[in-house]
Amino acid sequence: MELTTNIAQKYSEVRKKTMELVSPLMPEDFIPQPIIDVSPPKWNLGHTTWFFETFILKAHNPNYKVFDTNFNFVFNSYYETIGERVLRDQRGNLSRPELKKVFAYREYVDKHIKSFLSEGNYDEDVLNLLELGINHEQQHQELFITDFKYILYSNPLKPAYTQINKDLSKPPSSLNFNEIDEDVYPIGYNGPNFHFDNEEGEHKVYLQEFSIANRLITNAEYLEFMKAGAYDKFNFWLAEGWDWLHKNNIQSPEYWFIKNGEWHYYTLGGCMPVDMNEPVTHVSFYEADAFARWSGNRLATEFEWEVACRHFANEIKPENNFLDAQHFHPIAQENNANQLLGDTWEWTNSAYLPYPKFKIAEGAVGEYNGKFMVNQMVLRGGSCATPANHFRITYRNFFHPDKRWQFTGIRLAK
Amino acid sequence: MELTTNIAQKYSEVRKKTMELVSPLMPEDFIPQPIIDVSPPKWNLGHTTWFFETFILKAHNPNYKVFDTNFNFVFNSYYETIGERVLRDQRGNLSRPELKKVFAYREYVDKHIKSFLSEGNYDEDVLNLLELGINHEQQHQELFITDFKYILYSNPLKPAYTQINKDLSKPPSSLNFNEIDEDVYPIGYNGPNFHFDNEEGEHKVYLQEFSIANRLITNAEYLEFMKAGAYDKFNFWLAEGWDWLHKNNIQSPEYWFIKNGEWHYYTLGGCMPVDMNEPVTHVSFYEADAFARWSGNRLATEFEWEVACRHFANEIKPENNFLDAQHFHPIAQENNANQLLGDTWEWTNSAYLPYPKFKIAEGAVGEYNGKFMVNQMVLRGGSCATPANHFRITYRNFFHPDKRWQFTGIRLAK
Amino acid sequence: MELTTNIAQKYSEVRKKTMELVSPLMPEDFIPQPIIDVSPPKWNLGHTTWFFETFILKAHNPNYKVFDTNFNFVFNSYYETIGERVLRDQRGNLSRPELKKVFAYREYVDKHIKSFLSEGNYDEDVLNLLELGINHEQQHQELFITDFKYILYSNPLKPAYTQINKDLSKPPSSLNFNEIDEDVYPIGYNGPNFHFDNEEGEHKVYLQEFSIANRLITNAEYLEFMKAGAYDKFNFWLAEGWDWLHKNNIQSPEYWFIKNGEWHYYTLGGCMPVDMNEPVTHVSFYEADAFARWSGNRLATEFEWEVACRHFANEIKPENNFLDAQHFHPIAQENNANQLLGDTWEWTNSAYLPYPKFKIAEGAVGEYNGKFMVNQMVLRGGSCATPANHFRITYRNFFHPDKRWQFTGIRLAK
Amino acid sequence: MELTTNIAQKYSEVRKKTMELVSPLMPEDFIPQPIIDVSPPKWNLGHTTWFFETFILKAHNPNYKVFDTNFNFVFNSYYETIGERVLRDQRGNLSRPELKKVFAYREYVDKHIKSFLSEGNYDEDVLNLLELGINHEQQHQELFITDFKYILYSNPLKPAYTQINKDLSKPPSSLNFNEIDEDVYPIGYNGPNFHFDNEEGEHKVYLQEFSIANRLITNAEYLEFMKAGAYDKFNFWLAEGWDWLHKNNIQSPEYWFIKNGEWHYYTLGGCMPVDMNEPVTHVSFYEADAFARWSGNRLATEFEWEVACRHFANEIKPENNFLDAQHFHPIAQENNANQLLGDTWEWTNSAYLPYPKFKIAEGAVGEYNGKFMVNQMVLRGGSCATPANHFRITYRNFFHPDKRWQFTGIRLAK
Repeated sequence: MELTTNIAQKYSEVRKKTMELVSPLMPEDFIPQPIIDVSPPKWNLGHTTWFFETFILKAHNPNYKVFDTNFNFVFNSYYETIGERVLRDQRGNLSRPELKKVFAYREYVDKHIKSFLSEGNYDEDVLNLLELGINHEQQHQELFITDFKYILYSNPLKPAYTQINKDLSKPPSSLNFNEIDEDVYPIGYNGPNFHFDNEEGEHKVYLQEFSIANRLITNAEYLEFMKAGAYDKFNFWLAEGWDWLHKNNIQSPEYWFIKNGEWHYYTLGGCMPVDMNEPVTHVSFYEADAFARWSGNRLATEFEWEVACRHFANEIKPENNFLDAQHFHPIAQENNANQLLGDTWEWTNSAYLPYPKFKIAEGAVGEYNGKFMVNQMVLRGGSCATPANHFRITYRNFFHPDKRWQFTGIRLAK
Repeated sequence: MELTTNIAQKYSEVRKKTMELVSPLMPEDFIPQPIIDVSPPKWNLGHTTWFFETFILKAHNPNYKVFDTNFNFVFNSYYETIGERVLRDQRGNLSRPELKKVFAYREYVDKHIKSFLSEGNYDEDVLNLLELGINHEQQHQELFITDFKYILYSNPLKPAYTQINKDLSKPPSSLNFNEIDEDVYPIGYNGPNFHFDNEEGEHKVYLQEFSIANRLITNAEYLEFMKAGAYDKFNFWLAEGWDWLHKNNIQSPEYWFIKNGEWHYYTLGGCMPVDMNEPVTHVSFYEADAFARWSGNRLATEFEWEVACRHFANEIKPENNFLDAQHFHPIAQENNANQLLGDTWEWTNSAYLPYPKFKIAEGAVGEYNGKFMVNQMVLRGGSCATPANHFRITYRNFFHPDKRWQFTGIRLAK
Repeated sequence: MELTTNIAQKYSEVRKKTMELVSPLMPEDFIPQPIIDVSPPKWNLGHTTWFFETFILKAHNPNYKVFDTNFNFVFNSYYETIGERVLRDQRGNLSRPELKKVFAYREYVDKHIKSFLSEGNYDEDVLNLLELGINHEQQHQELFITDFKYILYSNPLKPAYTQINKDLSKPPSSLNFNEIDEDVYPIGYNGPNFHFDNEEGEHKVYLQEFSIANRLITNAEYLEFMKAGAYDKFNFWLAEGWDWLHKNNIQSPEYWFIKNGEWHYYTLGGCMPVDMNEPVTHVSFYEADAFARWSGNRLATEFEWEVACRHFANEIKPENNFLDAQHFHPIAQENNANQLLGDTWEWTNSAYLPYPKFKIAEGAVGEYNGKFMVNQMVLRGGSCATPANHFRITYRNFFHPDKRWQFTGIRLAK
Repeated sequence: MELTTNIAQKYSEVRKKTMELVSPLMPEDFIPQPIIDVSPPKWNLGHTTWFFETFILKAHNPNYKVFDTNFNFVFNSYYETIGERVLRDQRGNLSRPELKKVFAYREYVDKHIKSFLSEGNYDEDVLNLLELGINHEQQHQELFITDFKYILYSNPLKPAYTQINKDLSKPPSSLNFNEIDEDVYPIGYNGPNFHFDNEEGEHKVYLQEFSIANRLITNAEYLEFMKAGAYDKFNFWLAEGWDWLHKNNIQSPEYWFIKNGEWHYYTLGGCMPVDMNEPVTHVSFYEADAFARWSGNRLATEFEWEVACRHFANEIKPENNFLDAQHFHPIAQENNANQLLGDTWEWTNSAYLPYPKFKIAEGAVGEYNGKFMVNQMVLRGGSCATPANHFRITYRNFFHPDKRWQFTGIRLAK
């Protein structure tokens, strides 16, 4: 019973948090889809609600009356099991349902979830799905932040979302490498709490001796790479990265531009000069890999990262720069902190593949992770847009190697 | 002075009409750009205002203070002379300026135009530009209607814009052809009033004897063509039309779909069964041409159309179904009316080319028409979305042969 | 009977001419298709033979045994009536049938055509089709030359096809305009000899007074246009031309390149410095139109061209630079010749549209011309790759406005 | 010295083998490039020769006179270090240099390599490069076979390359799984002989207990998968695989087609009914993965494959169906052979990534492997087109997951 109380409370908090994140926006801001990766905020709001309605209320509460029968078509993302849906590249056409109706949809579903939970007529499956739905909404909180950053940036007026505290800048400690011994190490989640199927199944991995950097790469260090002409030297790049650079005419991280001869960037606080002390972010895997090669090092594997994290940063602390810190931007290194948690996701040189014994679950929930296990690279560590209680050190994030709209950064290994 | 009063009044009426057309919409409806041809309504609102601000207030009133310096970039359409602009395919990203600010922009410019006119410090050039701006806004009223139809249709909920009076349906008169003699005829505008550069220069054209249909082709007749399998028989189609059909998988006019075994269409009044008495609309030139060939006839040239119109429909009457009638949809033929004016634009078999002596004007205004004179076909006659006092029988509209989002229809000749 | 003898002789001559044109090539040269417009020479050889086999031998000689049943699929171009075919963009895959077999195919069909003609069991339809087939082969002789030019140019070794006599260069006469009066003029073919359906139907056209240049624009004049920065000034260009320039990064005519600071071009005689006295060629309609606008003039309509030609160049003479002259390249103006015939096709500002009373013939032959009457511009006058006895002054050639691989040039009017 | 003799002999044999493989072709067959993946055979012939000329003769023999200075541009593949080159998608334009000249180029380089070796003025680097060049040519022998298969298949006449012995069909043994224990295993090449940089660095890998199939999946088994409708059921497919199916309209392995209601395929022996006993081949990773999922199993990792191979097939035997067997097609299982070696490459569920300590070599040779380590999957085991003495059990082949023109097949694990 206490479990239910706890989860009901977590449900309320997470749902409320989403509404808080939305509050600085104007109704018009909820509509555009400037690139296919970026979903309109209104769609995100509806989709996370649809997830609870579909997998819990419709599936487990026979008395539940659907809010609007059209919404299954409108707000399904990629669950083929659940039927037809608005194609991903058509989400920008969703002028209707209007924002007020989507807010009403959220309230309606919240009310029914709460009363369903308080009535107690459900089994443990429902609690598991609720946990999944809460974590799903937290994932979309991160996407909401990064999508909205891209939407505002695509607007020629470059409006800000919030104010960003720029007093935090201080020079980082010098870049060192910490050694970790060759050994067989456990990898993957092993515990009683919520986790995704893709991190399940603790298993042994043999690691050679390696060393890993004590902090993230800064904008100053990345600028050295740029000034060294590395964007024009093929030998630092994977062949597909080199083609990607030229096809897209890329010469700097996403959001960077030159103004009055100086590098600036768009942040959620608007446009401003690049802070050289901060970790570099919004780089693709190709850029992270090229930087590592240029510096004579490499990226860590996801297994090395997880082992290093267990050595150096096993515990999530308030000072980690997760979404909860409300900075909405990476922060220059504090007090020799290693920056393993929060700030930016760290590209690893591991492809996103199943762990041993990985099984895809039956039904729609089985479409959550497994069907994406090709052509993507794993990222570890969370970012300034990740809710802290959504994160675990076994958490595996994954994106295609050319993607840059997430808060993605670089940690070296060798 | 009277001229100024008249034009000031026309300015007010047209600007007010635009706001009336907008009034049924929700703020979110002003944002999407589902295809590149279709501009977001908010952009249309700003762009027509920008036209007055740029070409009149900024150019001719030295005391004018620009409303927002960013708007030149945001609301320029294609005037290279005027500088950089938001690319046409990025207009759907314009969440900001928010709708309220665009409304304020309209009020601000209206106020300044009115006081500028009342002060009287301007020459005839300004009056000419004002006439052009008013006609430009009227053109955009038509685009507004057709763009908005496409936007609502692209929404999975298929919302209606208005109610459409469906009591008007009655069977059309039988299809006949009226003969016109071989002769030299005058073509083009010759008069003192506003007209576009592309219709200027009355000149002689030699026409062979021809005959032209007494009304538009109906949905019933078009359905015969469909039922005869004409969409699958190459010999009725231009080669590029045949490729277009297959590339886009086209089997019916735009907005048509089958529901419960019966043809329906989306209209500005929502989805409903196709009214077989109405003129067919939303067909491409390729479809119009194929229909004509299938029926053993052809489309008229724009010169034949203009000569026929001078014979049979020289005068614009209240019962013509222009925008002013507020039907927002073609109407089944009334009382043997020939439907030459209003209802649907009529595809002609004339390419959009300059008249003899055509000269492109100096400066930005010269970009209005001339630079589009290739690869487009001429349409004549106006539609249910054209303001009546914007129209003349010498009016030349033009679109690429694959376009279907305007109210386009078919008249046969032979 | 004499008619048959004449046509049999013409058949032999034209078929032999094709084999002569082919003789400088290596077997490997017959295969590539560097762009979709350009057909491999082997395909051209087979296709022209297939035309005679299909429309004469198979259709009219019941005793004829097809050479190879697969060839109908291989060598049909675009005749939907005749069945499935190799898609146009797949012609470069035709390693087989090997060249020797295609030569054998030609001999086989030639032998059967000759014996069929000598036996005399046919009606006038056959003679008409034979005339059409001969003219079809002559059209392909021109395509053969221009396609082969593009193929050799696409090869990094830039091999020559022949030697070009470059001693013919001499400065042209000064550029003048000849006036022609306003009047009603006859246009179109009216006579007993072979002509295409698209030029049939002499009819009256009313022309305003106009004047037309006394010669073609030279490379020197075109270079002035380039040096004036016209490729970078939008106001000289049609909007679609401007987009085409940027999408394809175009700054000069096709085949031009800079070497050691000087403009060179690839010709069928190999690479060499541009001869400034020659007519410019390999320009698109967009470039011809922009040049005319930059010079303060315009292009002629096809009707103006035909009327001017009847005034000034009604007769085809040996000194016209047609294919028969074997220069394979335009020649600098000779003795104040007006260059109306031969040298380069002249872009007109007329869209390719049907003449009054135009009817598409029944059956496959009806697919010859009519189905291309949209989005193309008319060219007049023939080129250095056109067989002289294939040409008439009523001849209408047509290409899309962006095409440059034909010998296309510029004549001004005003 | 003996080493030199051996390698000189190996050089001669491999170079001669290439010419043998080419001998059934017509000159025209050497030109087409039907898809970007497939290189024209003439280009392959020149490129392998260029490799020896560039990296050995030009780099190490100061007296060497280059055969043709243009060939560096023509025959470089992707070595950015070596300068500009014909773009990969333009290789089909290489009508020249004509085949005879490419043959002469081969003879010229062979003569100079032999005399350079016999003179003995070189260091060990040269021997290493020679080994690399020989292995490079052997890789291209495999590509030659698979490219040529695709070229002939793209020809509408579907010519055969050779005769295929179809008497070898016999039913396979029943499908079983062999277990292998959990343990730490060595992976990678450790020895004195030639190997690629990507397999270097023997290192330990921890494997969980697994079992692996005793043979390849047959056409009969794959047809069951097809008949079960698996191509139309999203839940068996990776999301990108599902999109790939629909975008390319795929319903069977490459080269399969239905004739008279029965499945046929194109083989290097021409078109014939599918032999149900043979291993299925020309499937993509997506299809291999979907088949495994449908069957309730999975694909092995490359590490599992290598360990299994050391258990069951450590030695390459004459009866393995490599290129040397001259079948040019997979063969139905012989005598319970496990088919680990030869027949088809086996898709693994391992992404192509660097081994620990992998370093990219300096200079052009460093571009051989490392720059492709993203977005590709590893294949193991060699195929009927792989030269036996080119292969090692540590050999890592790699292709993008959608590629099917290699001889690729399926082995299950669980």
